[in-house]
Amino acid sequence: MMSTLEIQAGSAEAHQGETVKIRGHVHTVRDLGNLAFVVVRDQTGTVQTIVEEPSLLEMAKKLTPESVVELEGRVVAQPKKGVEISVCGLEILSRAETVPIELAKTSKVDALALTTMLDYRPITLRTEKARAIFIIEAEMCRAFREYLGQQSFREIHSPKLVSTGTEGGANLFAVDYFGKRAYLAQSPQFYKQMMVGVFERVFEIGPVYRAEQHDTTRHLNEYISMDYEMGFIKSEQDVIAMQVRLLKHMFASVSENCAKELALFGAVVPKFETIPQLKLAEAIELLRTKLGWTGEDGDLDPEGERLLCQYFLKETGCDLVYVTHYPLSSRPFYAMPCPSENGGAPLSHSFDLLFRGLEVTTGGQRIHLYQDLMAAMRGRGLDPETFSDYLQCFRYGMPPHGGLAIGLERLAKQLLGISTVKLTALFPRDINRLGP
Amino acid sequence: MMSTLEIQAGSAEAHQGETVKIRGHVHTVRDLGNLAFVVVRDQTGTVQTIVEEPSLLEMAKKLTPESVVELEGRVVAQPKKGVEISVCGLEILSRAETVPIELAKTSKVDALALTTMLDYRPITLRTEKARAIFIIEAEMCRAFREYLGQQSFREIHSPKLVSTGTEGGANLFAVDYFGKRAYLAQSPQFYKQMMVGVFERVFEIGPVYRAEQHDTTRHLNEYISMDYEMGFIKSEQDVIAMQVRLLKHMFASVSENCAKELALFGAVVPKFETIPQLKLAEAIELLRTKLGWTGEDGDLDPEGERLLCQYFLKETGCDLVYVTHYPLSSRPFYAMPCPSENGGAPLSHSFDLLFRGLEVTTGGQRIHLYQDLMAAMRGRGLDPETFSDYLQCFRYGMPPHGGLAIGLERLAKQLLGISTVKLTALFPRDINRLGP
Repeated sequence: MMSTLEIQAGSAEAHQGETVKIRGHVHTVRDLGNLAFVVVRDQTGTVQTIVEEPSLLEMAKKLTPESVVELEGRVVAQPKKGVEISVCGLEILSRAETVPIELAKTSKVDALALTTMLDYRPITLRTEKARAIFIIEAEMCRAFREYLGQQSFREIHSPKLVSTGTEGGANLFAVDYFGKRAYLAQSPQFYKQMMVGVFERVFEIGPVYRAEQHDTTRHLNEYISMDYEMGFIKSEQDVIAMQVRLLKHMFASVSENCAKELALFGAVVPKFETIPQLKLAEAIELLRTKLGWTGEDGDLDPEGERLLCQYFLKETGCDLVYVTHYPLSSRPFYAMPCPSENGGAPLSHSFDLLFRGLEVTTGGQRIHLYQDLMAAMRGRGLDPETFSDYLQCFRYGMPPHGGLAIGLERLAKQLLGISTVKLTALFPRDINRLGP
Repeated sequence: MMSTLEIQAGSAEAHQGETVKIRGHVHTVRDLGNLAFVVVRDQTGTVQTIVEEPSLLEMAKKLTPESVVELEGRVVAQPKKGVEISVCGLEILSRAETVPIELAKTSKVDALALTTMLDYRPITLRTEKARAIFIIEAEMCRAFREYLGQQSFREIHSPKLVSTGTEGGANLFAVDYFGKRAYLAQSPQFYKQMMVGVFERVFEIGPVYRAEQHDTTRHLNEYISMDYEMGFIKSEQDVIAMQVRLLKHMFASVSENCAKELALFGAVVPKFETIPQLKLAEAIELLRTKLGWTGEDGDLDPEGERLLCQYFLKETGCDLVYVTHYPLSSRPFYAMPCPSENGGAPLSHSFDLLFRGLEVTTGGQRIHLYQDLMAAMRGRGLDPETFSDYLQCFRYGMPPHGGLAIGLERLAKQLLGISTVKLTALFPRDINRLGP
């Protein structure tokens, strides 16, 4: 082909009357006998091309969806349809076999069984809605880093190969590390705390691993955790205040930069000035007395989370609610204790954030004094010796600190109203799935 | 304490005459009898405080380095030394045990044995030079994402738990995945290629794993790989051209935003308009005939990489050099073949980038046609069935594409002239080290 202006589908409108070159996947082919319409898809969207030239027509008619082509032609105005490209040159860069799924038909793709969707992940990800999910996730990550960078947080990369678990040893994947036993990190918890001693404020976006046997719409065995940890806090309320501002920035960024993608899901980002809070004991009381909940004390079950969010949405207009003051016994050993109330069990300076019925964040203040941490470990029957590396930072001076983790896939699931986190992970891992 | 203006060490100069509060780690304490100097360190730097108040003096003299304190006092000008804070209030938030290393003395820290430095990583990371390394790495990551975002690359998160290796099965860490065998990903290679079929251009910064038994200054068993992959290229030269612009942006960003950190190492960022290139065969010829190298054919050894970089620095003033056209047999099966020269072995459209004597990038064009990829696998004795998930994207249309990976720790090592990559990873993993 000649050296012609290369354009993208999304900019075709701006090139009316010009001869251009465009490259992309064949989205659809419509054979009308003496002409064919070939819709071409690239990174920016789709554009219709029309092939009438007899020497190209047979080739065009035989194009299979997803084949990769390079087309040359003139951009012509089409009444009511914007522009189309009248093709004078066509080259096939990669011919696709017959795709087993009609990727261009949203209703057919939406109706696929989850296993089919995931078994064919490399191609089902090519659909407009699947792409939109990961465009939004990328924007969330960008905005997360942008905001925390502005707030003097430093990005860190902590190891995922570790020698001990952070939560007491359950649900760890074991790795054969040169004949020794290693584990995959369940969270960057210990490392981000150590790094508070170095940088005061740190964040990390990275994979975490949970060897949980659950196979639900809320669980992944590998997921992306968006963590931050900050020093010199007064209580967990400083961590919460930071997150409220962070989420505002993230939602505003997604709203501004991903309007088209949100619209595909009919999704609206939450709008709020503050996020309501209540203590876990209050939440349980409310659920029991007003919302007909019959779950067990000590934590919220999925039904409790849904009912509570429905209630707060109705009462306050907010899609999010913080549940605070979890019992110390239901939190890891490093959770900062806080006095019990009404003679109840000891509580902790910890919180969960619920978003449209699902927990998307766990966080809190941590114990920062060495002796207190040692006592907390012993109180749980943990051997401090196992944690000697972690304990170093506390022996040698740590500020009061706290932090949280946001599950990226859960945040996207709730924002977009998607049925399962398996569809908000690019290549999800669950108890039955290690591929693609 | 009263509600006083809270400031950071780095901004003390701007508050002369004011009463302020400052929080941080005790950097050093100097006991002069009737007064004590306490240097306090926070995220922004250090500031000297002077304690003369009798009620605080004994407490100040007993402060241990790394203890976390909150100080209140008046900012007073000090001839020749900027400002110091005359302390009227002192609270200890966390008292440090006696630190076994004099962290404030750079020469003593620099002289530590590597194992000591790493065994005490949570506290040796608090030194100014160690912090500088990771400030620079964070800036490199930020600039990498910024530039590629501007070039229409999308960020992805690919799984690190995988069912097959990308390089043929060697050097994989095995994971017990619910009774099945999984591996830790050696690279996001297959996934970033699949995602080229989705987004055309993608990038990822994430951990990768190599179960190599090497224990050298160049190897880590877990490291941070900065990957990109791009569609619709004509050859590996498009991948190289993108990296040249990317590196310019990254180095310019580090130069602009991390001048103080660079200065600690006497480091200068490379300046270049283009980066010289030569074919591997030419490099070997040059090494043998002009540079006295006696290594083996087929690849460059560390000595060859050093000599080649010295030569190009002298000849062209450039700290970087691309070596291209590696033999096909020394590259993975997905490398795009290119014709052999002078009847030699088949070559590949691949390259390495050497920076001040060390390979920091491997990349190339990939095979994008299904049949060619199947043939390449069979030619290497690989069973395509093992790769059926990966092969999906090729069966259903893939553009010509290529990409590369930059090793973050190596890039920082070479930029700063640090002796080993173990010091440019926060918490390095090697054959003998799983902690801290």
